[in-house]
Amino acid sequence: MTEAGMMMDNEMIKSRINAAADNVLEDYKGDMLYHADKYPIPSKNAIIRVLNNLIDVIFPGYFTEYNIQGEGIGEFVRSKLTLIADELSNEIIKSFRQSHIVGDNSCDGCQECVEKGMEVSLYLIEQLPYLRDMLAFDVKAAYEGDPAAVNYNEIIFSYPGLYAIAVHRIANILYNKGIELIPRIMSEYSHSLTGIDIHPGATIGRHFFIDHGTGVVIGETTVIGDNVTLYQGVTLGGKSFPRDESGNIIRGKKRHPTIEDGVTIYAGATILGGDTVIGRNSVIGGNVWIVSSIPPNSKVTLPENQTKMNIKTFF
Amino acid sequence: MTEAGMMMDNEMIKSRINAAADNVLEDYKGDMLYHADKYPIPSKNAIIRVLNNLIDVIFPGYFTEYNIQGEGIGEFVRSKLTLIADELSNEIIKSFRQSHIVGDNSCDGCQECVEKGMEVSLYLIEQLPYLRDMLAFDVKAAYEGDPAAVNYNEIIFSYPGLYAIAVHRIANILYNKGIELIPRIMSEYSHSLTGIDIHPGATIGRHFFIDHGTGVVIGETTVIGDNVTLYQGVTLGGKSFPRDESGNIIRGKKRHPTIEDGVTIYAGATILGGDTVIGRNSVIGGNVWIVSSIPPNSKVTLPENQTKMNIKTFF
Amino acid sequence: MTEAGMMMDNEMIKSRINAAADNVLEDYKGDMLYHADKYPIPSKNAIIRVLNNLIDVIFPGYFTEYNIQGEGIGEFVRSKLTLIADELSNEIIKSFRQSHIVGDNSCDGCQECVEKGMEVSLYLIEQLPYLRDMLAFDVKAAYEGDPAAVNYNEIIFSYPGLYAIAVHRIANILYNKGIELIPRIMSEYSHSLTGIDIHPGATIGRHFFIDHGTGVVIGETTVIGDNVTLYQGVTLGGKSFPRDESGNIIRGKKRHPTIEDGVTIYAGATILGGDTVIGRNSVIGGNVWIVSSIPPNSKVTLPENQTKMNIKTFF
Repeated sequence: MTEAGMMMDNEMIKSRINAAADNVLEDYKGDMLYHADKYPIPSKNAIIRVLNNLIDVIFPGYFTEYNIQGEGIGEFVRSKLTLIADELSNEIIKSFRQSHIVGDNSCDGCQECVEKGMEVSLYLIEQLPYLRDMLAFDVKAAYEGDPAAVNYNEIIFSYPGLYAIAVHRIANILYNKGIELIPRIMSEYSHSLTGIDIHPGATIGRHFFIDHGTGVVIGETTVIGDNVTLYQGVTLGGKSFPRDESGNIIRGKKRHPTIEDGVTIYAGATILGGDTVIGRNSVIGGNVWIVSSIPPNSKVTLPENQTKMNIKTFF
Repeated sequence: MTEAGMMMDNEMIKSRINAAADNVLEDYKGDMLYHADKYPIPSKNAIIRVLNNLIDVIFPGYFTEYNIQGEGIGEFVRSKLTLIADELSNEIIKSFRQSHIVGDNSCDGCQECVEKGMEVSLYLIEQLPYLRDMLAFDVKAAYEGDPAAVNYNEIIFSYPGLYAIAVHRIANILYNKGIELIPRIMSEYSHSLTGIDIHPGATIGRHFFIDHGTGVVIGETTVIGDNVTLYQGVTLGGKSFPRDESGNIIRGKKRHPTIEDGVTIYAGATILGGDTVIGRNSVIGGNVWIVSSIPPNSKVTLPENQTKMNIKTFF
Repeated sequence: MTEAGMMMDNEMIKSRINAAADNVLEDYKGDMLYHADKYPIPSKNAIIRVLNNLIDVIFPGYFTEYNIQGEGIGEFVRSKLTLIADELSNEIIKSFRQSHIVGDNSCDGCQECVEKGMEVSLYLIEQLPYLRDMLAFDVKAAYEGDPAAVNYNEIIFSYPGLYAIAVHRIANILYNKGIELIPRIMSEYSHSLTGIDIHPGATIGRHFFIDHGTGVVIGETTVIGDNVTLYQGVTLGGKSFPRDESGNIIRGKKRHPTIEDGVTIYAGATILGGDTVIGRNSVIGGNVWIVSSIPPNSKVTLPENQTKMNIKTFF
């Protein structure tokens, strides 16, 4: 092929790219996937930075590559909290602006949004001693619940279940303050890293432990008491959705189970429904399917003859 | 220990490292894990960049930190499409070269490979309006199927199921054009982020929703109709593999189920086999194990007395 | 609002941040989540770099963006091994120092810790030909076990199950040398990327294949023979934990199952208990729950009428 032939090809390529671009631009007009020309959505990267800075302050010395020493610790905490308050308030303002309409337009970063953003950010960092207290119980729960745990260091440093509950306890504070999008971005970041999907709306008590965790789903309106242990693949989910007369889902009702104090739920159990209550101190075996309440102090498993009766020796 | 002692130790260390390196180099000779000295394999990083650029163009304004405004949108689309076409065609050429033998050698980036690479890349970007149309239906399916969804923004911005189907619809176009490795790299990248494993060969209809998603597996020859909903941990897999007379697996047969229009499959259900058809509008309960066809409009669950009969109150 | 008003607000913000910081610093005193002022914990980033360098040397040419050619391969291996030995020994020293007390203090990087760190690092790189031999069998196992596998390249380049077993075989060598934290950091990194959670202590034979893999859990004291295949969501876990008189878990006993040669375990099966043995060449169906031994050559599935009896045609 001659050089001229190649150049013509390049012209052809350029013209097909331009035509494709024109078609995409035409397709953008007024459609629901188009979010340019609008107030910016919160930044995932900024929210992940905020989350990691919070984790650094909660567990000082665990996740920083450098050593924090002596007097430096005061400066470490003050500078981290300043950074968190600045960056988080900025993102919360973006979130508020998604739904704050002033006259015919969305607000342009008004004083009210700015002040609400800073107020929630300050509130969150003021909850840090409470968060650290809750998470210390969660570390103990992991140590007491897992014979493979060597010491607290290993749990804090490497257990995905501890990371997931730490992120959840942070995200839940923001959710309860009515912040949209940001808590969900935090929980989905944790979901992506750990395979544990806890909706920021879920209410979870003290001394909570998820072992292994991949595939765990805890729905928005779930209520979990104290001293509860879950294994991988446990679903605390919705059963069916009430719909209005037009067939649209009615949102905001309790759709997910209540798990009382002291319950243990083994791998792969599926528990569904807003009226389903697992009574205190019950043990739920692996792979069961539960759609109604279980009384306290119960033990629920698949039938013991479930597998035995199906053993066929095939040689 | 004297400084001389330390230096001798360093000599010893160096000599053990060199001996280990010599053993590794000896081990490389002619073995199946060795891919140096060959045509380079497609770059994961480049393919992930292509994928993210495609997602940026499909959902403009959602994943870019900066605000795209006014006239800038035209330049944004044209420059993204040019970048995608360049980078993707480059990687497709590397993929073609893995199997294109010219005489006794693999091709050295011949004109045929270059043209085929550019042709497939242009074809893909020409499909963007179609992809956006399909994905708009998928966003609606998520909103209609999940009472916890606040609005479309939240779904586009944070739902792993939407990300997984977006990547799948892109990878499937390349798979259907006979491209090796690249669609699989895309699907495994999405699998790593979302826990959802959709083989690029799977055929999936309109208005599709995977909720939560961790642990979902959809095999290569699966066929899914319109308006289907899957929950976390659902397997659409192979039952057994036909083997030839030498005991080698016969590849390329339909090995995975067919899911007809309007079916809902709850968490942890395992459905296997190329002849297994789940009839239209059926509801499959959690944790069931299905290896043969189910008629339309059926509801399949574990026996209702499955757990109840095994409740033992132990206090 | 006047500029003075804004400035006062800034003063107020600053003072709330400082008060929050003081409360956090007060909260740090003597608590279990505080790890500043101590010897640094191993660096996750450094350990991930070591892991990726090991993978690069094991599968040369697969994961490097540049082409390794001709004489360059010798320099490539020597420089990678030097880097691995340096960086890994550094991290192992940090791990040893967590538990090495000299007099009243933890050791300050004593000669003994330095030498032990280097010795283990050299031992690991000397095992590379053995690791490559084992992993070549694992690649073959994937090709023989998955009809969707196109060739070895695709498996090495994109199968999460192969990545997980590669990381496990590395981490297991360090675990068997008594190294704490580092093998667990490696396995949790792999868990995060693949959804496959293999404790570094698990013993796994030759020619091993995990397909898809999300949700797989293999406990610390599991023993797996040769030619075993697992699918996604399989748990090889602990049943109950023996406790001492004070109610504390007794650590270090065999708590997880033994899987003999030639066994296949389908998606979502849960197998628990240190005395549970799945006999050679058995096939375990999906979603079963097994808490006692199964004889060799058995086939175990959920009852065939499990679902059929519950089909209700609802139109």
